[in-house]
Amino acid sequence: MGTTQSVPHRAVVEHLVRQVVYERLGKPMPRVAAAPNPLVVNISARHCHLTPEAVEALFGKGYELKVHKWLYQEGQFAAQETVTLIGPRSRVISNLRILGPCRNINQVELAYTDAVALGFGIPLRQSGDIDGTPGCMLMGPAGFFEMPQGVIRALRHVHMHPEDAEFYGVQKGDMMKLKVGGPCAITLEQLLVRVDPGFKLEVHIDTDEGNACNLKPDTPCELVK
Amino acid sequence: MGTTQSVPHRAVVEHLVRQVVYERLGKPMPRVAAAPNPLVVNISARHCHLTPEAVEALFGKGYELKVHKWLYQEGQFAAQETVTLIGPRSRVISNLRILGPCRNINQVELAYTDAVALGFGIPLRQSGDIDGTPGCMLMGPAGFFEMPQGVIRALRHVHMHPEDAEFYGVQKGDMMKLKVGGPCAITLEQLLVRVDPGFKLEVHIDTDEGNACNLKPDTPCELVK
Repeated sequence: MGTTQSVPHRAVVEHLVRQVVYERLGKPMPRVAAAPNPLVVNISARHCHLTPEAVEALFGKGYELKVHKWLYQEGQFAAQETVTLIGPRSRVISNLRILGPCRNINQVELAYTDAVALGFGIPLRQSGDIDGTPGCMLMGPAGFFEMPQGVIRALRHVHMHPEDAEFYGVQKGDMMKLKVGGPCAITLEQLLVRVDPGFKLEVHIDTDEGNACNLKPDTPCELVK
Repeated sequence: MGTTQSVPHRAVVEHLVRQVVYERLGKPMPRVAAAPNPLVVNISARHCHLTPEAVEALFGKGYELKVHKWLYQEGQFAAQETVTLIGPRSRVISNLRILGPCRNINQVELAYTDAVALGFGIPLRQSGDIDGTPGCMLMGPAGFFEMPQGVIRALRHVHMHPEDAEFYGVQKGDMMKLKVGGPCAITLEQLLVRVDPGFKLEVHIDTDEGNACNLKPDTPCELVK
């Protein structure tokens, strides 16, 4: 695995600067600056999670994913490897990115715009909840892998450390809202709260949601209960 | 031109039924039922508006657009004709629908997802406000037509008759919000109000916005000031 260390997310730097500035000035800290962690909002482009067996079928016996880029969540990465997705009407999406490390289920996460392009009806599901969802065929350099199910649109969600959940006054499974500002301002409701001691505070939305509000690194975002 | 009459929009039928039911039951009418007109929300897929000169360059001397489907706004239609859009990086979108009748400017309206696919940076503009926007090449069966400018993402907007503007207490140029319910609920802020005696009450959002909230004919929508 590679060891590329990406630069800190803009929201992380801003949060640090904000805290230091208020402290130096001896001014009362506004609520957003008092949060234990910066609010990072990232767009998940279409991608897949694969089992080691699927990776071997697609890339060859004993093959291991290589790191292309580390993601904000600890230990998660975009792999160098991509696959070709073949939909039920033989339409194709090339260069579908694999996210690593491997998991114990195979899951493809698409935006509705992708699904429409493929001629596919896909359900809105929480990651991992794939019973009864449609499948697809994947193609890699060493062969094909058939997924009998696992193609979903992932429910928009926020990863939270327990200290974030406490600060925002929410629990695992609650729904929050993300207010996104700017000229295409949107409030995304039905944002699922996921809490784990291994998580860093991060909202994941898909490309339809990100494009609907034209989310950029400097777009103001606020998490509300 | 064709004369196909499409069935009334679901929102139109619901609005009529709602008004009749409250009246028959002799119950006070809730605000939404008391509105002078039903709220119709439609998704505008990518399309273009063309001048007669552009239509002639693309389809031949004296060519006139044929009606594929009448739209909700009086006299507006999706044409049978489509063109191929060639972007600045020679990437292509096929089957770009022309909306008729012809106008006095050429304008292409894309979603950001389309723009990303084309490798294009396009600005968010009100329809008709195209100064300084990027251009593209269009290809039709009879030839090419170069647009030096006019490729935009249209600002989400609501068409209103003056009686709708009065009911909602807004004026031309104001911004409203559209609350969209369901499992992917979203509030679209920065919804531009356009008022004209020739308009029927209708919200236009693009495919990114429609897919972000998975708008269907039965998705509950509410217009708020």
